[in-house]
Amino acid sequence: MTDSIPDPISPPARLLMGPGPISAYPSVLTAMSAPLVGQYDPFMTATMAETQELYRGVFATRNDATLLVDGTSRAGIEAALVSLIRPGDRVLVPVFGRFGHLLAEIAERAMAEVHTIETEWGQVFPPSAVEEAIIRVRPALVALVQGDTSTTMNQPLDEIGAICARHGVLFYTDATASLGGNDFEADEWGLDAATAGLQKCLGGPSGSAPITLSERAVEVVRSRRRIEAGIREPGDPSAPDFVRSNYFDLGMILDYWGPRRLNHHTEATSMLYGARECARLLLLEGRRAVIARHRLAGRAMLAGVEALGLAVFGDVAHKMNNVVAVEIPTGVPGDAARTALLDDFGIEIGTSFGPLHGRVWRIGTMGYNARKDAVLITLAALETVLARFGVAVPAGGGVEAAADVYAGAE
Amino acid sequence: MTDSIPDPISPPARLLMGPGPISAYPSVLTAMSAPLVGQYDPFMTATMAETQELYRGVFATRNDATLLVDGTSRAGIEAALVSLIRPGDRVLVPVFGRFGHLLAEIAERAMAEVHTIETEWGQVFPPSAVEEAIIRVRPALVALVQGDTSTTMNQPLDEIGAICARHGVLFYTDATASLGGNDFEADEWGLDAATAGLQKCLGGPSGSAPITLSERAVEVVRSRRRIEAGIREPGDPSAPDFVRSNYFDLGMILDYWGPRRLNHHTEATSMLYGARECARLLLLEGRRAVIARHRLAGRAMLAGVEALGLAVFGDVAHKMNNVVAVEIPTGVPGDAARTALLDDFGIEIGTSFGPLHGRVWRIGTMGYNARKDAVLITLAALETVLARFGVAVPAGGGVEAAADVYAGAE
Repeated sequence: MTDSIPDPISPPARLLMGPGPISAYPSVLTAMSAPLVGQYDPFMTATMAETQELYRGVFATRNDATLLVDGTSRAGIEAALVSLIRPGDRVLVPVFGRFGHLLAEIAERAMAEVHTIETEWGQVFPPSAVEEAIIRVRPALVALVQGDTSTTMNQPLDEIGAICARHGVLFYTDATASLGGNDFEADEWGLDAATAGLQKCLGGPSGSAPITLSERAVEVVRSRRRIEAGIREPGDPSAPDFVRSNYFDLGMILDYWGPRRLNHHTEATSMLYGARECARLLLLEGRRAVIARHRLAGRAMLAGVEALGLAVFGDVAHKMNNVVAVEIPTGVPGDAARTALLDDFGIEIGTSFGPLHGRVWRIGTMGYNARKDAVLITLAALETVLARFGVAVPAGGGVEAAADVYAGAE
Repeated sequence: MTDSIPDPISPPARLLMGPGPISAYPSVLTAMSAPLVGQYDPFMTATMAETQELYRGVFATRNDATLLVDGTSRAGIEAALVSLIRPGDRVLVPVFGRFGHLLAEIAERAMAEVHTIETEWGQVFPPSAVEEAIIRVRPALVALVQGDTSTTMNQPLDEIGAICARHGVLFYTDATASLGGNDFEADEWGLDAATAGLQKCLGGPSGSAPITLSERAVEVVRSRRRIEAGIREPGDPSAPDFVRSNYFDLGMILDYWGPRRLNHHTEATSMLYGARECARLLLLEGRRAVIARHRLAGRAMLAGVEALGLAVFGDVAHKMNNVVAVEIPTGVPGDAARTALLDDFGIEIGTSFGPLHGRVWRIGTMGYNARKDAVLITLAALETVLARFGVAVPAGGGVEAAADVYAGAE
């Protein structure tokens, strides 16, 4: 098996214009290759603290408990849910796409009594529907996706926090696909917990999950605190309803990131460097400016695909800035067209899940690729490929419409 | 909070000679900054398959189910344990240091009935002690650390697999600290599951956990298979005793790495690149050659610290190649001496846990740093610092003794 050792990694050039992962910012890739330091090196602990402060800026929060979970975005989701949900707790999950099902699934595995409400794919919930369900179910926690890439919808959250507070319910959102490219206000919206990943609007690689917890969420986590055998000392707590995961026990993860620096995992140093750079770039450009850049790129891509004659899926008024779903024109083999885009132009766009599989493509404009040139190149290539498969497309129409949006914004 | 944006990451120069994490191989850091591709890009899936094959070489196995868990080494441990342990299963954990307690802790959180046997820190178990406990406890699984950095001991595993097989018990080992620097033969030793991390002898950053599972272990995992809501199709399995974690459900992780490529997490691309390069370097140099390099570096460091008059902790005959624990000489403030090494020489050595805290330092020679120059520099700096704190050390004695070991090996 060791006869043929492959060469060093040398990925092909790709412009990633799908629903994520997307091409990382160049300086994030540079940060990933910075030399390692020890886990209790003063530089390491300072970098961890600095990264926490940067993510407070990204989440728009003053939550002390803002940190990284070492894993992909769904590691952050699971850490939030298993740490906040006690077995038997009722959890309400409003489902408007695939990732709502995922929250319900993870909550169920955490032994919650899960109640879902569903809306048609392509729609979002009015706040009143969530409140009605809360009154009916009386959950301990509402778990709600913000941006669900499976449908491209962006659930408005600004009124849900107040509703949850009124009913004494914890409010968690999965902001993996939306954070950094769409409005997000953890404190102003009354969120108790939010998690994300780097591989969408934050412009980094998958593998680190930023998370923020309100004081109220921290109280729940702390009440379930159990310091692990091996480093537990006399007098250290061990709650009877301790979290049924060691790796995702946010109480221990908080102790590791906190002043006590109690050993838990060994922080993934390169991912920390990358996560730090994602947040640094975002705040350097300005949080609102980055969101505005995503909004503009999203508007331009939308105008472009519409000018190419493609029908847009879902309630466009509630579409995320960073992704659009378009119906695959009749007669066009969806996967073959995507393969042509990839093979001939090095451009990736996305396929779809569940009820939309084979019916729509998903085109993203996020992070580093929420850029005019990336939008125009993608539209030019898409036009060529559509024409190749016999679709009547107006020559240059998509590019022109998108360029007009950019020109109008200048 | 966004008033002062920090500069790009710029870590200080460090020679990491502790028990891990250690300095990564330069080409691993380079690989970490390679451009990203999409998660179903043919290049990505080929790279995943290639990485699986490379880790078969590292683990010395033909197990098809050899892959990466996206998280630190303890993510790999938890994935193995929650996927293999059904709630209520009896699990035997022979504990000879801190990380044995961790296995017991994680198994307990996975709702196992955990039975431990313990031996004094600094010792390992004779196979007969494990067999006696198996006969008494009748566990479904034995979970045993190979190399426990907390004591520096390397538990011999070569006879345990046959014992487990004889009694119909699954055999899992945590090889985080030992793999790549000490003998390891997954197939020959009859292991059903083994996990590791990159940040020890494999010479990479923390954040990816290589894992290998035997056919027998895969059967257990498969029998608990449940495809998650959102991508589940009619006829897909949903076992009643499904794994109580989504992220660590090896059944779904196998489906993601397998031919079906069923969406689960979004593979951490940069960590994959890094993990691939760690394994590639190891196999390029030769698995046995890398282990021999660790053995030599370990012997040289041992000779060096003994020549400096430092007492070595534990049963040296069963010491891991890649770390040595030395008693802190009377009168020397352990942490101040470590700080002096770090601040004046940029060299990190390790402190200790539990009963050894404040009593021993742990000095590692692993991965990239299992090198003659790293060993000699560390000994020279240590000598200086010891002398500064009033210890009578033979001038150049440590360096000379270590150099003699290298000379003798030429």
